[in-house]
Amino acid sequence: SVIDSSSNAQPLYSKVTNPTLSPSHLQDLPGFTRSMYRSDHALITPESHVFSPLPDWSNTLGAYLVSPAMGAHFVMYIAKMQEGSKSGLPPKHIERFVFVVQGLVTLTNVSGICQTLMTRLLIYLLTQSISSKVMNLLHLLYLKEGMLTWKIIFPSQLLAPLINSHFLTPPERQIMDFQPGEFLNVKEVHYNQHGLLLLEGQGIYRLGDSWYPVEAGDAIWMAPFVPQWYAALGKVRTRYLLYKDVNRNPL
Amino acid sequence: SVIDSSSNAQPLYSKVTNPTLSPSHLQDLPGFTRSMYRSDHALITPESHVFSPLPDWSNTLGAYLVSPAMGAHFVMYIAKMQEGSKSGLPPKHIERFVFVVQGLVTLTNVSGICQTLMTRLLIYLLTQSISSKVMNLLHLLYLKEGMLTWKIIFPSQLLAPLINSHFLTPPERQIMDFQPGEFLNVKEVHYNQHGLLLLEGQGIYRLGDSWYPVEAGDAIWMAPFVPQWYAALGKVRTRYLLYKDVNRNPL
Amino acid sequence: SVIDSSSNAQPLYSKVTNPTLSPSHLQDLPGFTRSMYRSDHALITPESHVFSPLPDWSNTLGAYLVSPAMGAHFVMYIAKMQEGSKSGLPPKHIERFVFVVQGLVTLTNVSGICQTLMTRLLIYLLTQSISSKVMNLLHLLYLKEGMLTWKIIFPSQLLAPLINSHFLTPPERQIMDFQPGEFLNVKEVHYNQHGLLLLEGQGIYRLGDSWYPVEAGDAIWMAPFVPQWYAALGKVRTRYLLYKDVNRNPL
Amino acid sequence: SVIDSSSNAQPLYSKVTNPTLSPSHLQDLPGFTRSMYRSDHALITPESHVFSPLPDWSNTLGAYLVSPAMGAHFVMYIAKMQEGSKSGLPPKHIERFVFVVQGLVTLTNVSGICQTLMTRLLIYLLTQSISSKVMNLLHLLYLKEGMLTWKIIFPSQLLAPLINSHFLTPPERQIMDFQPGEFLNVKEVHYNQHGLLLLEGQGIYRLGDSWYPVEAGDAIWMAPFVPQWYAALGKVRTRYLLYKDVNRNPL
Amino acid sequence: SVIDSSSNAQPLYSKVTNPTLSPSHLQDLPGFTRSMYRSDHALITPESHVFSPLPDWSNTLGAYLVSPAMGAHFVMYIAKMQEGSKSGLPPKHIERFVFVVQGLVTLTNVSGICQTLMTRLLIYLLTQSISSKVMNLLHLLYLKEGMLTWKIIFPSQLLAPLINSHFLTPPERQIMDFQPGEFLNVKEVHYNQHGLLLLEGQGIYRLGDSWYPVEAGDAIWMAPFVPQWYAALGKVRTRYLLYKDVNRNPL
Amino acid sequence: SVIDSSSNAQPLYSKVTNPTLSPSHLQDLPGFTRSMYRSDHALITPESHVFSPLPDWSNTLGAYLVSPAMGAHFVMYIAKMQEGSKSGLPPKHIERFVFVVQGLVTLTNVSGICQTLMTRLLIYLLTQSISSKVMNLLHLLYLKEGMLTWKIIFPSQLLAPLINSHFLTPPERQIMDFQPGEFLNVKEVHYNQHGLLLLEGQGIYRLGDSWYPVEAGDAIWMAPFVPQWYAALGKVRTRYLLYKDVNRNPL
Amino acid sequence: SVIDSSSNAQPLYSKVTNPTLSPSHLQDLPGFTRSMYRSDHALITPESHVFSPLPDWSNTLGAYLVSPAMGAHFVMYIAKMQEGSKSGLPPKHIERFVFVVQGLVTLTNVSGICQTLMTRLLIYLLTQSISSKVMNLLHLLYLKEGMLTWKIIFPSQLLAPLINSHFLTPPERQIMDFQPGEFLNVKEVHYNQHGLLLLEGQGIYRLGDSWYPVEAGDAIWMAPFVPQWYAALGKVRTRYLLYKDVNRNPL
Amino acid sequence: SVIDSSSNAQPLYSKVTNPTLSPSHLQDLPGFTRSMYRSDHALITPESHVFSPLPDWSNTLGAYLVSPAMGAHFVMYIAKMQEGSKSGLPPKHIERFVFVVQGLVTLTNVSGICQTLMTRLLIYLLTQSISSKVMNLLHLLYLKEGMLTWKIIFPSQLLAPLINSHFLTPPERQIMDFQPGEFLNVKEVHYNQHGLLLLEGQGIYRLGDSWYPVEAGDAIWMAPFVPQWYAALGKVRTRYLLYKDVNRNPL
Ligand SMILES: [Mn+2]
Ligand SMILES: [Mn+2]
Ligand SMILES: [Mn+2]
Ligand SMILES: [Mn+2]
Ligand SMILES: [Mn+2]
Ligand SMILES: [Mn+2]
Ligand SMILES: [Mn+2]
Ligand SMILES: [Mn+2]
Repeated sequence: SVIDSSSNAQPLYSKVTNPTLSPSHLQDLPGFTRSMYRSDHALITPESHVFSPLPDWSNTLGAYLVSPAMGAHFVMYIAKMQEGSKSGLPPKHIERFVFVVQGLVTLTNVSGICQTLMTRLLIYLLTQSISSKVMNLLHLLYLKEGMLTWKIIFPSQLLAPLINSHFLTPPERQIMDFQPGEFLNVKEVHYNQHGLLLLEGQGIYRLGDSWYPVEAGDAIWMAPFVPQWYAALGKVRTRYLLYKDVNRNPL
Repeated sequence: SVIDSSSNAQPLYSKVTNPTLSPSHLQDLPGFTRSMYRSDHALITPESHVFSPLPDWSNTLGAYLVSPAMGAHFVMYIAKMQEGSKSGLPPKHIERFVFVVQGLVTLTNVSGICQTLMTRLLIYLLTQSISSKVMNLLHLLYLKEGMLTWKIIFPSQLLAPLINSHFLTPPERQIMDFQPGEFLNVKEVHYNQHGLLLLEGQGIYRLGDSWYPVEAGDAIWMAPFVPQWYAALGKVRTRYLLYKDVNRNPL
Repeated sequence: SVIDSSSNAQPLYSKVTNPTLSPSHLQDLPGFTRSMYRSDHALITPESHVFSPLPDWSNTLGAYLVSPAMGAHFVMYIAKMQEGSKSGLPPKHIERFVFVVQGLVTLTNVSGICQTLMTRLLIYLLTQSISSKVMNLLHLLYLKEGMLTWKIIFPSQLLAPLINSHFLTPPERQIMDFQPGEFLNVKEVHYNQHGLLLLEGQGIYRLGDSWYPVEAGDAIWMAPFVPQWYAALGKVRTRYLLYKDVNRNPL
Repeated sequence: SVIDSSSNAQPLYSKVTNPTLSPSHLQDLPGFTRSMYRSDHALITPESHVFSPLPDWSNTLGAYLVSPAMGAHFVMYIAKMQEGSKSGLPPKHIERFVFVVQGLVTLTNVSGICQTLMTRLLIYLLTQSISSKVMNLLHLLYLKEGMLTWKIIFPSQLLAPLINSHFLTPPERQIMDFQPGEFLNVKEVHYNQHGLLLLEGQGIYRLGDSWYPVEAGDAIWMAPFVPQWYAALGKVRTRYLLYKDVNRNPL
Repeated sequence: SVIDSSSNAQPLYSKVTNPTLSPSHLQDLPGFTRSMYRSDHALITPESHVFSPLPDWSNTLGAYLVSPAMGAHFVMYIAKMQEGSKSGLPPKHIERFVFVVQGLVTLTNVSGICQTLMTRLLIYLLTQSISSKVMNLLHLLYLKEGMLTWKIIFPSQLLAPLINSHFLTPPERQIMDFQPGEFLNVKEVHYNQHGLLLLEGQGIYRLGDSWYPVEAGDAIWMAPFVPQWYAALGKVRTRYLLYKDVNRNPL
Repeated sequence: SVIDSSSNAQPLYSKVTNPTLSPSHLQDLPGFTRSMYRSDHALITPESHVFSPLPDWSNTLGAYLVSPAMGAHFVMYIAKMQEGSKSGLPPKHIERFVFVVQGLVTLTNVSGICQTLMTRLLIYLLTQSISSKVMNLLHLLYLKEGMLTWKIIFPSQLLAPLINSHFLTPPERQIMDFQPGEFLNVKEVHYNQHGLLLLEGQGIYRLGDSWYPVEAGDAIWMAPFVPQWYAALGKVRTRYLLYKDVNRNPL
Repeated sequence: SVIDSSSNAQPLYSKVTNPTLSPSHLQDLPGFTRSMYRSDHALITPESHVFSPLPDWSNTLGAYLVSPAMGAHFVMYIAKMQEGSKSGLPPKHIERFVFVVQGLVTLTNVSGICQTLMTRLLIYLLTQSISSKVMNLLHLLYLKEGMLTWKIIFPSQLLAPLINSHFLTPPERQIMDFQPGEFLNVKEVHYNQHGLLLLEGQGIYRLGDSWYPVEAGDAIWMAPFVPQWYAALGKVRTRYLLYKDVNRNPL
Repeated sequence: SVIDSSSNAQPLYSKVTNPTLSPSHLQDLPGFTRSMYRSDHALITPESHVFSPLPDWSNTLGAYLVSPAMGAHFVMYIAKMQEGSKSGLPPKHIERFVFVVQGLVTLTNVSGICQTLMTRLLIYLLTQSISSKVMNLLHLLYLKEGMLTWKIIFPSQLLAPLINSHFLTPPERQIMDFQPGEFLNVKEVHYNQHGLLLLEGQGIYRLGDSWYPVEAGDAIWMAPFVPQWYAALGKVRTRYLLYKDVNRNPL
């Protein structure tokens, strides 16, 4: 089954939930943070996460990483659920995408039909609620109404092939992989925004004039037109989750 | 009574009304100010306060410290009342919070019921007007309609226990205390805004890439997502008044 | 009469129309300008003025110095009229203020009543048109509808006392004078915006972290909350024209 | 005919389509780009172009260079068409201007009337669609509804005289030419925005405090009030295409 | 006598010994200082003075403000003497200049001849020692051997006329006075170094690209070629003591 | 005995040898370092230490932290000895000071007399060599000839009282202790240089315009005249080892 | 004769002696200067010249523009002579080069032989003194002993051909000419130093990261290895005088 | 033989002699250079090389990349020889190292014994002269007397094994190789200087706070204590030549 296929003890994205440079490693450096917020981009690193109860969710702590208050047209956040936690529903006409960083969640749609999601599943949710059987770390994107011009087919058809491969071919929500030494061919400048969560590996992200060493667990917001480029370094693959708004008239 | 309990001659927050580094100490330094306004935060220090008559108030001088013109969704200001001064009412659907920095004020609600407030009282006002018996220094926050999702119970129930303790448990309007050497555990990055008035003590506030020495009497505005951190220094407790907008969907 | 009183040959504000550091003095410095535009203020110096025909005016060249495109809620511009030039009317519900820097203009209101204005007159215009008998240099402010809460009495009553004194006591549009060595007592931080035209003298303007040498003919825009301070230098009085939006609730 | 007149083998604006400093010359410089995005201007150089299918167009790749997401009120982009490519129509009430950088396109209006455009033609399109006979590189501007106060006469009258001269006298969309050593007389500061594509030559563009070497193929966005200045250098003429919004009340 | 002439109770340069912005005024601002040290200049303000016993002096505390360790070819320091304090002698071939900021000192030359100095006396010392009858604050300059090409005649001849006037006509050690609004005509760039102590008044010092508000009690070091300019502000005269090395071949 | 008194298992300065933010915690952040080198100061953090064999020492790895190549007049380094390691002798006329961060060393003077040193001992060495019985981490200062004007009495007399107290009263080589919240009273500007090793605790070091979070294990170099200030934070004492050159004529 | 050949009334390098942007044009801009001094270059513009009597010269005022105090190994200065002025001799083993910017001087060598120099003559002087018949403006370079490896033949042979051409072929002291639009092919980085005086024309000088508009009368110092580049602009030729130390081993 | 072993037509380090981003690619970008010179490091890229005849060499052009004038204690330069070119000898007590980037040279020692060197040979030269049979590009280091504490055995013994391996084991002159994605483990801070020539590949060099994309042909100087780090990117190996001064007492 879908669930059984990840029977190895080592969590898939363990450096997101337990980063090499954890907040406790910085406990003796008063005032130090790698987090940076500029008008055209932000780097949000684990020691800056502020968790508080999510409104309309039960028994869940969440940390908002990106929101319209910084100039984005979407919300990106991390939700920590426990056994018995239950999500609220997305506001009307708002699309919600879920990536299960760690653990298992059950989706229940308005007809009461349930489906279990596990780590590595990126899923589109319009009216479903989420409940949790085990401790979970979710990565969520909320999109403003009307910003997307296409729809993902209901996830049941997609679940199987997603387990062992890149699963969402539409470029709007990409899983990007880089081998060590590999980098973006284009030093991109475009009108699209990005929300990014680094799942595996490490490298250098250039954003505007700034160069940031990044590692798994770091999140990035890129405003429209910020020059951007990534190079993967070290001995393991880099994988990141990338939101990009496309297929719309920029006017 | 509530009023009598502060019979000591020394005003509670005397460094707010009479800062160690008063404007007169800077009178020989033409053009010098510690005030700073950047796109994601502001430090407003006493030598920059511009007092002028408050519209709709009688016999009151006010200095606006924060307003939507700088990107905030609230107004924070200081009002200097004298005996016989009387406030205007807040605009309709606008919530007003009052903190009496020094002196005594009388609240009168629409039914004509009065209540006396003294230093250290943080109070929620929807339709009450304020009049003053003695010279007062008030710290006020105006909040835009609809931004808060809960209500404080009418202050009469709250007055007594507020005198000698932290009194407003909801995190939205906090009194934060730090012992010397204590600092914020998290180098916070969040979508919420802050309005802050330093009531006692001194320390270092990091806002984005800037580090500011601050002391009682200084005010701060923090835009969403500015990295922020405080450390208390010296030999006395730091206490500050903190506005934070919470409990709402950031989308 | 009002007009006769300025019978001296030397124009009143000759350094505005003929600055000590004229554009021709900079003709051999390719790319050099003292003009500066930052997010919270702008300095606009004569070599950067771009004159083009004013829409709806006849035979008039204008240079816009401040506009909402830079974050202001008003328009400030200089209009060069010649004999026979005629203004357009302000858009409906828009207030217009005129300061005659040099020359003579005739006001005609909707009833056809005319009135002659000369240098040094700051005047409120709602529906009047302006025509010119001699070459004029006007300094104009356009204010968005509803931003002012008071009205100036029709200028006929004001003309006489205005000639030899500061004439507009309301603080919203001030004539500010400084003797050499004099400076602003407060290093101001406030929610109000400013539009400024330096009519006489020279000094140093501090805006945020920047210090600017300024002289007659320079114009400045100050966004809300930019720390600001001026000191007059040299051997003559500094006089500047200052727009400030006051008397309104900043919420 | 119009088409025959450019029978020389060398394309007119070959450095736009094949810049001296092509993306491949930078392939060994990881993370290097000359592109720059600041709050008041942007330089977009060829190695930063991101081409993807244009929505509503058939068989066409486009790269957006300027859009409202960066603060502009227009869209500027480059479209690569092939034989048989066909454009979508502009959104209703949106004006579209086309400059054929290389190749041939056919315009078809709603009545089915066709007209062929070739390199060097800047044309106004309200309801026409474009189809391509040969490989084309188009430079397009989309303008928001209502921003222009005048109309260009239908292009059929303009085509003939446009071939060998500067063809659009209204200043809103200018072809600007500079001989080597020539520079802008005024260091301009104005409320108007610009979109610029450098067609021939090279020089220095000063934007705010920054000085940029530029060459054919570079594109620039200038926000309102950014101080701006250009000097042409080298041995050949500089020619650039310039959008400027004029003839409207800046309030 | 020389001494009696300053019988007014108010010390002459009281703001040097008791500055408006004293260290105690800054005691609640942890880490704040106006002092600045750059490669081409330094501003040393009172809260940064570090006093320790002066080697070879008895019962005297001194604070070095300028030394060769920062690139200067002289030493400038402040010495606090008490009754009975006695200086060491200058090293051989080193010239020493003394300005008595406050109090009285007695000079004794090698022949045992004594002379009393009081506030406002700038004096050249080669082999004399200084002893103190009352609490003194001295400002001293040590000059490296061979750097001066002229000699001051023994002070006995100079004492009388020095009391009420500028007393040292050679430009090497100047007393500079400015009336409010007055400023340096030349924005100087020269190979000479300066050591400066502000005795009275306040103003703005521009050093390189930096603008510093300064007041009595502040000291400045200027390296060769730093662009420099001063403007006096406020209601009282500015007076400063200025060391400048002149009359030598700069090769 | 002196040695026995530290019988607790926990090493005294364990955060120097095993810092909270060890190099391995930064292994996934390519290119990241907290180290900073400016013309007037340097922060050298553990992930930047380059260890290589020390010339003239046997079986010892050393990392130079400060040297004259950066403008200092001393050398500061860390030496890792093992059982059987043996130091070279200091160059002639060079003074050497040793602080045993961890472990035990034996001093042997030219007469063959030995003495055992343990953690916390700061010792003056002119001609002694050092050998090691166990793994050691030494902190050494080399001073150029003639820079010190006093001598420490041979360590045998000093050993006993050093164990439980601050042991070197001369200010030249200080152990500085701060309780949490405590800070330097003076924002120091002086001609003296410093070499500093943070042994315990954490806080903020201001150097010039920069503010650095620091923790045990960090080293600092301060050039003459860099403004400097420290505040201790957290729950434990800060202790640092400080070299300062005093008691000499700065000319 | 040599002298007669410049009989036109218009001085050759009149913009050096009377710059378009003269100090008097900046008299109303307190504190403003275009002069800039950085560690690797300096721009010295006319409003910053400080003239004082030249030691060992009679009746001459000089302004030093470059000296070893800024890191150069030469001195560059301007000397204003009058009728009857007489120079001192260069120090022994020091070479002196003279360029007559305006007027006439007479050279007298040790044998008493005289020779008249006029504008445009660059001349090598080892032991000659200079006397002046008419008001002169000289540009002089002093070179430290031993830095040059070749010698110029005594000027008498060179005078004639120098009048109407570039006269000093050795690259060490060059006259550089640029036509409008022309620029340096190489963005030079080299170990050699430069002293430069702009005699005619205007353009842009890039020095390190800085871009400077320059015009006739401006002087520049370039330290070793500062990246450097010039482009001539406007309608007239640029000519500058350039000192460069070559032909020596840089070790 | 040594020479025959490189019989492949493709030169070994062709990107040094013919860089991907050649000066001609930048010919249309007036004033643009990637070269940077700061106080603690320099990047020297091909478009900034200034070639001129090398003193004491015949028929050779050289470009100095590093010299003591920038703070180094060595000289690094590139020499272009042609058939028949002949070097001068190094100054007495100066050591010279040669790396043949391209072509063949013959060494002749004082006894007249010759030896042929080819590309990839790094060789120590004390008294040998170099002559060239074919066009050569040499990379040379000159070291000041006494800076090295060891000697390389005469090259004849070393030639054979050098051809296909890293050949100089002493760390002082290293060949460093990195596979794509590989980076320096330590973010180094040390007292040693570096001279570096990138022979193959590309990556990112961090120097102090700056991040530089670099490619084959770029040269770097690193002053003592500049924090430094390299990461190799792309698909091919990075190889660079690195000078480092070690094995000496840093005092
Ligand atoms: Mn992208
Ligand atoms: Mn917070
Ligand atoms: Mn104001
Ligand atoms: Mn323009
Ligand atoms: Mn001076
Ligand atoms: Mn200190
Ligand atoms: Mn050069
Ligand atoms: Mn290294």
